[in-house]
Amino acid sequence: MGLPKIVVLGAGYGGLMTITGLQKKLNENEAEVTLVNQNPYHYVTTKLHEPAAGTLDPDYARVNISDVIDERKVKFIQDVVTKIDKDNKEVHLKGASEPLKYDYLVIGLGSAPETFGIEGLLENAFFIRDLNGVRKIREHIEYQFSQYHQVDESKRDELVTIIVGGAGFTGIEFVGELVDRIPQLCREFDIPREKVRLINIEAAPTVLPGFDKELVDYAVNYLEGKGVEFRINTPIEQCKEDGVILKGGEEIKSATVVWTGGVRGNKLVEESGIETMRGRVKVDQYLRAPGHEDIFIIGDSSLVINEENERPYPPTAQIAMQQGQNVVKNLVAILRGGSMEPFKFHLKGTLASLGSHSAMGIVGKKKIYGKPALILKRLNDARWYFIIGGLGLAMKKFKL
Amino acid sequence: MGLPKIVVLGAGYGGLMTITGLQKKLNENEAEVTLVNQNPYHYVTTKLHEPAAGTLDPDYARVNISDVIDERKVKFIQDVVTKIDKDNKEVHLKGASEPLKYDYLVIGLGSAPETFGIEGLLENAFFIRDLNGVRKIREHIEYQFSQYHQVDESKRDELVTIIVGGAGFTGIEFVGELVDRIPQLCREFDIPREKVRLINIEAAPTVLPGFDKELVDYAVNYLEGKGVEFRINTPIEQCKEDGVILKGGEEIKSATVVWTGGVRGNKLVEESGIETMRGRVKVDQYLRAPGHEDIFIIGDSSLVINEENERPYPPTAQIAMQQGQNVVKNLVAILRGGSMEPFKFHLKGTLASLGSHSAMGIVGKKKIYGKPALILKRLNDARWYFIIGGLGLAMKKFKL
Repeated sequence: MGLPKIVVLGAGYGGLMTITGLQKKLNENEAEVTLVNQNPYHYVTTKLHEPAAGTLDPDYARVNISDVIDERKVKFIQDVVTKIDKDNKEVHLKGASEPLKYDYLVIGLGSAPETFGIEGLLENAFFIRDLNGVRKIREHIEYQFSQYHQVDESKRDELVTIIVGGAGFTGIEFVGELVDRIPQLCREFDIPREKVRLINIEAAPTVLPGFDKELVDYAVNYLEGKGVEFRINTPIEQCKEDGVILKGGEEIKSATVVWTGGVRGNKLVEESGIETMRGRVKVDQYLRAPGHEDIFIIGDSSLVINEENERPYPPTAQIAMQQGQNVVKNLVAILRGGSMEPFKFHLKGTLASLGSHSAMGIVGKKKIYGKPALILKRLNDARWYFIIGGLGLAMKKFKL
Repeated sequence: MGLPKIVVLGAGYGGLMTITGLQKKLNENEAEVTLVNQNPYHYVTTKLHEPAAGTLDPDYARVNISDVIDERKVKFIQDVVTKIDKDNKEVHLKGASEPLKYDYLVIGLGSAPETFGIEGLLENAFFIRDLNGVRKIREHIEYQFSQYHQVDESKRDELVTIIVGGAGFTGIEFVGELVDRIPQLCREFDIPREKVRLINIEAAPTVLPGFDKELVDYAVNYLEGKGVEFRINTPIEQCKEDGVILKGGEEIKSATVVWTGGVRGNKLVEESGIETMRGRVKVDQYLRAPGHEDIFIIGDSSLVINEENERPYPPTAQIAMQQGQNVVKNLVAILRGGSMEPFKFHLKGTLASLGSHSAMGIVGKKKIYGKPALILKRLNDARWYFIIGGLGLAMKKFKL
């Protein structure tokens, strides 16, 4: 086969956007397109806080890759990437004896938790990262609650104290879901509601750092009204098996610590020899790794500077999707001899859900709150299903 | 108050039958009737294997005591009995500074697990005993499954290996439910069905010892067809944190061991100085503790000999209910100066469910199998709700 080989690593927002775009734009005889992903499914990362809290069946956050790829145009390999060898233009896979050759590589391998050096975090905290992880969070919380009546009274409080580290988007969305789930857990396990504590701890001087103050206040008031305790300006110093130690020495006992405090790039990118900052690669205007015209990096492992404030755009689904679209255009241009188009991020808006009954955020320049915001957020979820799987998938997964 | 004091300990089948009978038969000025129970609810022990497996919402196996007692006639105390002082005719309660005086005491405090001296069983096994316990079993199993994809491959098998010790009624009914739940757990946690093992281990040379052979064969074939592994003639020698060691030394690794191998009487009865055999009291013909005309013992702590084979009747809901009815008659006779009636057990039948789709057993002298048996079993559950709470409760709890 003499066709140029395009290999896409990861079926996240960026990777799937690339794949579905390529299979739409390219003819069968233009390139050999391969997708590698460790699971046979894509999961909707922006919804993971819901199955983590137990308010959504994890299947609603999952899309089988076989349902969205066109097998005549894309080859899917379910495997784990173990090494990117840019000098030989190969990718090593855990389950394959031969490495996978590429002419063009698109890396969309997502992120890893950023622990900021907090002792014990990787060992003792949970992370909202993938379907297996969030199912475990949900089961872990339920298991703690189920033991409430069977342990000594002095041990009960920590079983039903849940600490969420980080009050960024994921943290806020997760506590929003969880605080809606708690009354149900209390009924199910005969635990008085007032015994359960949900504490959101944030090192920055505000919840949702960098976000509009009016919206932040709305979120905080809403969630405090439901019983969430916020501790801002409060770095966690250590995460232990049975809770956390805050800066200054205060200890909070808790059987469940979920860390949402930040992400860094995937270590495979770092290990490949590409220059990174906290695992993320400052890509060129075409989203390529500096000095590597054949490697595009999209999603959480890429770093794009917002020229307005000279700070990196935060890693979001929205930017990953737009990056995927850009890579598709540019790969088609390369194959067909056209000219490439620089990547420019268009922020359409930002919406954070606050559990099953409210949300808030900015759409265009307008602030929105409450049920309308929630409906918009859910429509936006449906839009993603529509993009990758058409109307059928959008209908199947849509839940208001 | 000069009224005779009747105190009923425990709101199980026997205790509730006694209470609902007394409040029907007695006038308000004939006796002061008190019920003591540690929970504010009764649970239907014969259904506990279902919430333990996760196939039934635990609330369907629970009845609030306030919904079935007539507060004008019965006083309910939610407390834990710590001591029965038969010499002073008092019962000590954990939460009360003054002991509770009685003239007539009805003990229906249920059973404790019989471990037959198996090392580590009390520490490491689960028991199908009460609502809190079965919720924990369900959550424990789910929690193990949720970790499957997150542990090293060498550790996975034991997470999804479940051992049920004892193949008596509870053991068989539990594996029947669980084997129906497993496919659902496998879908939920993306685990291949063939990886999950459900092993029922029994020391006796047969499943359901003492039961009709044809019915035993039916149950075993049905359950084996669904994937249950039976190990009969196989005593468990030790129960460890990570599995069991069988007689002869074979070890089976398992994250979940549920023991259903037998019960003994409640230790409070033994500690009160009444003579017991494995915690159970060989009661007289009126169900009284030998030498104590004021103490009736019913349910799992009482021992009644079947004159046909000179062996004790096994402790069942059926016998406890009939004992409750007998005690009501005899207490009324004592209060009104009538003559007491000896207890005689009438075995109406025995039905064991085999999951959500089948059951088997004997009704009268007839063997029944499959769906008809299951329907009869469920009607029998409904009958109990009807007896204690009337048609409204029966309708509310009935599920075919």
